[in-house]
Amino acid sequence: MTLRFGLLGAGRIGKVHAKAIAADANATLVAVADAMAPAAKAIADQYGCEVRSIEAILAAKDIDAVVICTPTDTHADLIEAFAKAGKAIFCEKPIDLSLARVKACLKVVRETKAVLMVGFNRRFDPHFAAVRSEIDKGTIGDVEMVTITSRDPGAPPVEYIARSGGIFRDMTIHDFDMARFLLGEEISEVSAMASVLVDPAIGKAGDFDSVQVMLKTASGKQALITNSRRATYGYDQRIEVHGSKGAVAAENQRPVSIEVASAAGYTRPPLHDFFMTRYTEAYAAEIAGFIQAASGKAKASPTGEDGLIALALAEAALKSVAEGRVVKMTEVMA
Amino acid sequence: MTLRFGLLGAGRIGKVHAKAIAADANATLVAVADAMAPAAKAIADQYGCEVRSIEAILAAKDIDAVVICTPTDTHADLIEAFAKAGKAIFCEKPIDLSLARVKACLKVVRETKAVLMVGFNRRFDPHFAAVRSEIDKGTIGDVEMVTITSRDPGAPPVEYIARSGGIFRDMTIHDFDMARFLLGEEISEVSAMASVLVDPAIGKAGDFDSVQVMLKTASGKQALITNSRRATYGYDQRIEVHGSKGAVAAENQRPVSIEVASAAGYTRPPLHDFFMTRYTEAYAAEIAGFIQAASGKAKASPTGEDGLIALALAEAALKSVAEGRVVKMTEVMA
Amino acid sequence: MTLRFGLLGAGRIGKVHAKAIAADANATLVAVADAMAPAAKAIADQYGCEVRSIEAILAAKDIDAVVICTPTDTHADLIEAFAKAGKAIFCEKPIDLSLARVKACLKVVRETKAVLMVGFNRRFDPHFAAVRSEIDKGTIGDVEMVTITSRDPGAPPVEYIARSGGIFRDMTIHDFDMARFLLGEEISEVSAMASVLVDPAIGKAGDFDSVQVMLKTASGKQALITNSRRATYGYDQRIEVHGSKGAVAAENQRPVSIEVASAAGYTRPPLHDFFMTRYTEAYAAEIAGFIQAASGKAKASPTGEDGLIALALAEAALKSVAEGRVVKMTEVMA
Amino acid sequence: MTLRFGLLGAGRIGKVHAKAIAADANATLVAVADAMAPAAKAIADQYGCEVRSIEAILAAKDIDAVVICTPTDTHADLIEAFAKAGKAIFCEKPIDLSLARVKACLKVVRETKAVLMVGFNRRFDPHFAAVRSEIDKGTIGDVEMVTITSRDPGAPPVEYIARSGGIFRDMTIHDFDMARFLLGEEISEVSAMASVLVDPAIGKAGDFDSVQVMLKTASGKQALITNSRRATYGYDQRIEVHGSKGAVAAENQRPVSIEVASAAGYTRPPLHDFFMTRYTEAYAAEIAGFIQAASGKAKASPTGEDGLIALALAEAALKSVAEGRVVKMTEVMA
Repeated sequence: MTLRFGLLGAGRIGKVHAKAIAADANATLVAVADAMAPAAKAIADQYGCEVRSIEAILAAKDIDAVVICTPTDTHADLIEAFAKAGKAIFCEKPIDLSLARVKACLKVVRETKAVLMVGFNRRFDPHFAAVRSEIDKGTIGDVEMVTITSRDPGAPPVEYIARSGGIFRDMTIHDFDMARFLLGEEISEVSAMASVLVDPAIGKAGDFDSVQVMLKTASGKQALITNSRRATYGYDQRIEVHGSKGAVAAENQRPVSIEVASAAGYTRPPLHDFFMTRYTEAYAAEIAGFIQAASGKAKASPTGEDGLIALALAEAALKSVAEGRVVKMTEVMA
Repeated sequence: MTLRFGLLGAGRIGKVHAKAIAADANATLVAVADAMAPAAKAIADQYGCEVRSIEAILAAKDIDAVVICTPTDTHADLIEAFAKAGKAIFCEKPIDLSLARVKACLKVVRETKAVLMVGFNRRFDPHFAAVRSEIDKGTIGDVEMVTITSRDPGAPPVEYIARSGGIFRDMTIHDFDMARFLLGEEISEVSAMASVLVDPAIGKAGDFDSVQVMLKTASGKQALITNSRRATYGYDQRIEVHGSKGAVAAENQRPVSIEVASAAGYTRPPLHDFFMTRYTEAYAAEIAGFIQAASGKAKASPTGEDGLIALALAEAALKSVAEGRVVKMTEVMA
Repeated sequence: MTLRFGLLGAGRIGKVHAKAIAADANATLVAVADAMAPAAKAIADQYGCEVRSIEAILAAKDIDAVVICTPTDTHADLIEAFAKAGKAIFCEKPIDLSLARVKACLKVVRETKAVLMVGFNRRFDPHFAAVRSEIDKGTIGDVEMVTITSRDPGAPPVEYIARSGGIFRDMTIHDFDMARFLLGEEISEVSAMASVLVDPAIGKAGDFDSVQVMLKTASGKQALITNSRRATYGYDQRIEVHGSKGAVAAENQRPVSIEVASAAGYTRPPLHDFFMTRYTEAYAAEIAGFIQAASGKAKASPTGEDGLIALALAEAALKSVAEGRVVKMTEVMA
Repeated sequence: MTLRFGLLGAGRIGKVHAKAIAADANATLVAVADAMAPAAKAIADQYGCEVRSIEAILAAKDIDAVVICTPTDTHADLIEAFAKAGKAIFCEKPIDLSLARVKACLKVVRETKAVLMVGFNRRFDPHFAAVRSEIDKGTIGDVEMVTITSRDPGAPPVEYIARSGGIFRDMTIHDFDMARFLLGEEISEVSAMASVLVDPAIGKAGDFDSVQVMLKTASGKQALITNSRRATYGYDQRIEVHGSKGAVAAENQRPVSIEVASAAGYTRPPLHDFFMTRYTEAYAAEIAGFIQAASGKAKASPTGEDGLIALALAEAALKSVAEGRVVKMTEVMA
């Protein structure tokens, strides 16, 4: 039996999910909705599905599940509506920029017993998943220290930054989730430093473009995150985990693996140019995982709770920068 | 406009092509034929196409092109029949084990002006294609010496070996084509050595499992090939090209790129386990290239002539082993 | 003209320096002193020099320079004595565990115009020096973010830890100096987290074995340090620097560079087992640099001031851990 | 007890050995001889030894062993003279360009029971030695196929080439020895191809600059060698060995291991610029090995016989090129 999808939002990430749904033998893309009619039509044409309104998708009997890729400020309302309508829900991160709103939304999800999965795609990257798998197998013993390097090739438009909730909620949030995924223990303390080194306009918009974060769990496990909005060499996405018996790391990925040798040295090509190509396999595996959850064959993961905690970590990082001190998670999660 | 395909042969490589056709937005898989009814049905079920006889596909008006994945001894007859029927033809290598038969077949192709492309998939691998692209850009100057390492994870069944025409015609043939692809000049001399080191049964069947070949062009450019039917570490597929200004190499590929560090050292996972996963992107690009050729937007490449020469190189290698001497290509191509 | 050396301290690091002096064509090891007579005798026998008391070396006319490798609590007194005696001084870090004592000592050095160089050997590692050289050439544009990974293969004896001033003053101090060397701008803020994950006895001794530190300069440049007292895979010593135009990194070094492929994957041997073999070239270059300085051909670098600031950074890190906040360098350097 | 050395020949390789002898705690360089007085004096000055004539060294009672680095056409005579004088002998390869002369010389060595070691330095490279060690440990099972890549950064002067005996006797000879070292079984068949691609002047001098060789043992083990007199990217020295249970490879070495990332990709510096820096550790270990042999603590290895066989392989390769066929070693060793 295939899962019948409605896609809400036909922008950049919507297209990524449309492609993953179309390629999955257990899924059918039935309808797409977008406030911008041409965007919706483009996806409808490419994958042979209908254009419908969100309301029609909400009411549709031929749709089992939705993928929410609309602007962030609509996420929580849509989750609540589709939860009440009994549809399985995949929602891009973040659920909302307000912790209180997220908590209220998750309450509705719990009450309706809806299936909700949040889009932390990196957990599904085969390389990062293999890192986690080595941890689970005990290869490196007890996890002690995690290092996450995450740099975008270039900064988004300043208008986007204004709406995004800032670098911690928009970009570092993925690394917060990855740190939790790898540490295997809740984070209790956060300390962050933030600078504007890439583009003064980002600073004028009240945000930062270069940040570093330290995390610690109750038992003393540690994690480091370093983020920049610019990397001339491509989309820099690395993790490494040091443990009592060894370490495991996932290196950067590039579309073409050749090496040219000359008098200037040995040169390999730049990395992937961004998430659409870097995480192709992750997006496919993510949708496959959601189909399992929506079909009742597995528990939804990452959960709404995972989305909430990652957002709370971003909140704590912001507070740490503002107050120049270590922030305890109990302060923001209370 | 999409190209409508008939697939002849539903075995291992047939499945690979079915998947590539199904995933290509410019192609439709209309029908599949196979002497083994369940194999054909499996593909029909998975991709929603019909099961037909080869004769029906030959006569079909709703089929523009065929992919020939049947046993080798049927290739030449099928090419001739479909060439006369005006269909575009993609045929797995080799066209035939007999050079004379291949020549006769290519005569029919020329006379009918049929589009024929031969399945040397490795030319379409993004990494190998990038090597060639660097050569074309002049990065390494004049090509001087090519080294090709090609090892299968394990030997095929002895029954297969008996039918395959031997290691040079079945396995090294890909490397012969790759050497031509990279040298950019016809090969004039061949010298080969061959041993049975993996499995005595292969020797009893009259074949070898470990071979090395030296090639030379008229201007003195050189190439080395080393082949084994066994590699415990996976499907070993590497090329490197040394030139007057530098060198370029394509390294091995693995499904998962992590590294585990422990007291035993730093370990990366084994390579891909065989061609189905190693060359996934190559098979997709190959079918896309064929669609271009069948649609008249590009010339078919690799051509039937490419198939012929690669086979002649295998013939020369066999002769070199038998006679313990360098064999000139004029001896076998006469 | 060769520089005539007296070596003070014949322990582990004393031996390293004795070897470097003996191998340098511009240096002669004239005498060695150690409270443990057999240790001094061993070096004297191996390199054909005399055993003398520290007092005799202080008064000697045939000695131009000393290398101080005695216990930390003697460093400042010895520097002052030899500065007054007009000898050039190379002193292992740290000058003292007390910032006030270091400042007083450096005052004497200034007044006597003595040549003083402090033993931050890593600046002389050819790989790390090449990283700095790329920065100087402008290859990566403006330095923005530094990441330093530094892990010892195993923890020192608990007795050593008690005397060492703790992990920040003993181990991280090298990374503090490296961060300054690479950032090219003074550090203004420090935030640190510290845990006991390796050995509870270290915790009982009042120290930590796993620490992470964030640094920031006035203009917003950032650096991360991660340290552990245990790494099963060898002596982990990596730096990377991200800048506005690119990045540069120095990878780990191993004594033997082979790779074994098997069904278990591709394995390279573990790293160097500790600093004596990892930094062989660095120690030789360091002594060569000191000889240049002592001969008046170059300025001594790293200076006593460099030693002071690295120690102050350790102080700030300790304060940050104790108070759970970002510490400004003006607080500890006042 | 230290071994007292006389060095015959103060040219490029003579200097390399002088340095290795000077640095070895078990060796003393007593005297150096060279037809060019300034060359001998330079070494004498640097290492504090005497300049003597070869005759004086032959008669000296304070010299136990000689290192022969004179022109090739003097090697055999010097070996015989020093063998009769009862000195231990280390001789650079080749012993002579004539197989017959080498055989006659080795007869004298046997009769005098002299210790003779031939300078195949690469066996002592720690990386290549580690490859051999893995084979000995059984890590890769039975050795099946060896691949040796060996390229010089640039061609020597044409005058040198004229005297050298040609590329097979001068350059490939090292790879022939390495192939024997790794195969662990005598080579029975040789096939070679040779071209002039780098410099027509080399062709005019009757030599080649680009060659490839296939080797085979009686049991069917295989080896490939590829050589060029030019590599813009540095001194290319790689070996890999494929066996029944796995493979082991030694990668290229570079003086500095950094990686620069930019929009142009990821670049590591070129390789070592030639053997003097690439094989520093090998030369030191080679002299240490010779000291062991001269002191009776180990058997000399590689032996004069190893030198003879490597030369015979070069002879066979030349014959193969001339006659366009596989040459059996029994043809040249008879």
